[in-house]
Amino acid sequence: MTKILGVIGGMGPAATVAFLERVQALTPAQGDADHIRVVMDMNPQVPDRNTWPGEAEVVLGRMAARLAAAGAQVIAMPCNTAHAQAAGIRAVCEAEGLSFIDMIAATADAAVAAHDLNDGVQRIGVLATPGGERLYQAGLASRGVEAVLLDGADREAFMALVYGVKRGDVGEAARAEMLRLAGVLADAGAQALIAGCTEVPLLLRAEDAPVRLTDSAEVLARACVGACL
Amino acid sequence: MTKILGVIGGMGPAATVAFLERVQALTPAQGDADHIRVVMDMNPQVPDRNTWPGEAEVVLGRMAARLAAAGAQVIAMPCNTAHAQAAGIRAVCEAEGLSFIDMIAATADAAVAAHDLNDGVQRIGVLATPGGERLYQAGLASRGVEAVLLDGADREAFMALVYGVKRGDVGEAARAEMLRLAGVLADAGAQALIAGCTEVPLLLRAEDAPVRLTDSAEVLARACVGACL
Repeated sequence: MTKILGVIGGMGPAATVAFLERVQALTPAQGDADHIRVVMDMNPQVPDRNTWPGEAEVVLGRMAARLAAAGAQVIAMPCNTAHAQAAGIRAVCEAEGLSFIDMIAATADAAVAAHDLNDGVQRIGVLATPGGERLYQAGLASRGVEAVLLDGADREAFMALVYGVKRGDVGEAARAEMLRLAGVLADAGAQALIAGCTEVPLLLRAEDAPVRLTDSAEVLARACVGACL
Repeated sequence: MTKILGVIGGMGPAATVAFLERVQALTPAQGDADHIRVVMDMNPQVPDRNTWPGEAEVVLGRMAARLAAAGAQVIAMPCNTAHAQAAGIRAVCEAEGLSFIDMIAATADAAVAAHDLNDGVQRIGVLATPGGERLYQAGLASRGVEAVLLDGADREAFMALVYGVKRGDVGEAARAEMLRLAGVLADAGAQALIAGCTEVPLLLRAEDAPVRLTDSAEVLARACVGACL
């Protein structure tokens, strides 16, 4: 029996739509009926996860409760940063008997599993917001891998790109700049990369990255298809 | 105060995602918070609208009720064919004080408004499923315009393309065939076209059509942005 996927989205809206597309692309389907049923709350008014974390946590918990009421059996949130404020979601899922797919853990697992196949990779670069960086730093450390992060002007340039995508800027200059930042991490010793923000793949495709890139949105989509089909 | 958009989707899943993209593209936004909140039930298991209309009507009504409970204030269904089974949705919207945007009426209005600007256009070709054809035939007739429809093998070819999109086939051959069918309608006297099935724009862009094309998915997205912002 297939399960209903609940999506806590809107962070940002374009990343959420791209995530839905990935779920469909990863689903073997000969017609409509083979696809996964998705109930979604795409709420672009969730308080900013970087500047209002406490308020975001309360809102996200309420969204999870509404999705549970709407029939969701598996919950996913295609926003890495917001996972720092997932306590309310986890509480709802536990109370209601729903599965919450942890995007950070799934992505760190996937990156490290690839690492095991490439003996010697011990430093993974992370393209993420400050909140996302902290989550991946901890997640990778607990798996014996060091995170390589952007700093200074490059970190600010990264956030400018993320907010640019949220304004609809996915143009050539933005793509070139994201590729440059990936190169900065590779030059700083990263032997592999994690796209740890759902806006990253809207600017940088895994096949264009200077070193192997594990895309958190792809990992989450794959985990959702596995959990629901 | 912006309103929450409720989307009854999944017919088909790819068309629903393309519709969400259009809503975002039509929304003036400088960041996440400027976008419209969307609660969605993307249910690819709605009984086939062409073969099981009665069953579809019941399921669609239940979906509308769930979206109302989830906070939706405006309801849209990006599937033309399913509008023949919208009675249950209309009943829920009336009872709950929600607006239901009628995709057929909005598209017929838009096509005829363009017609008024192009004096002499009295025959509009409709690319739609059999159920969608009947809705547009009635909608255009009540506006004093004759619908031009495909027949025989061309009508079967159209349905094969629609079911192909639902399997993920949006390749070059499928695009060329949809363009050919648009040409058949133009050759049969259609002075303008309606893309009256949400799978059509996944194969044929308005700018490639042989005569002016009014895209029902674009019309609905525009109406949703107007109703919610």
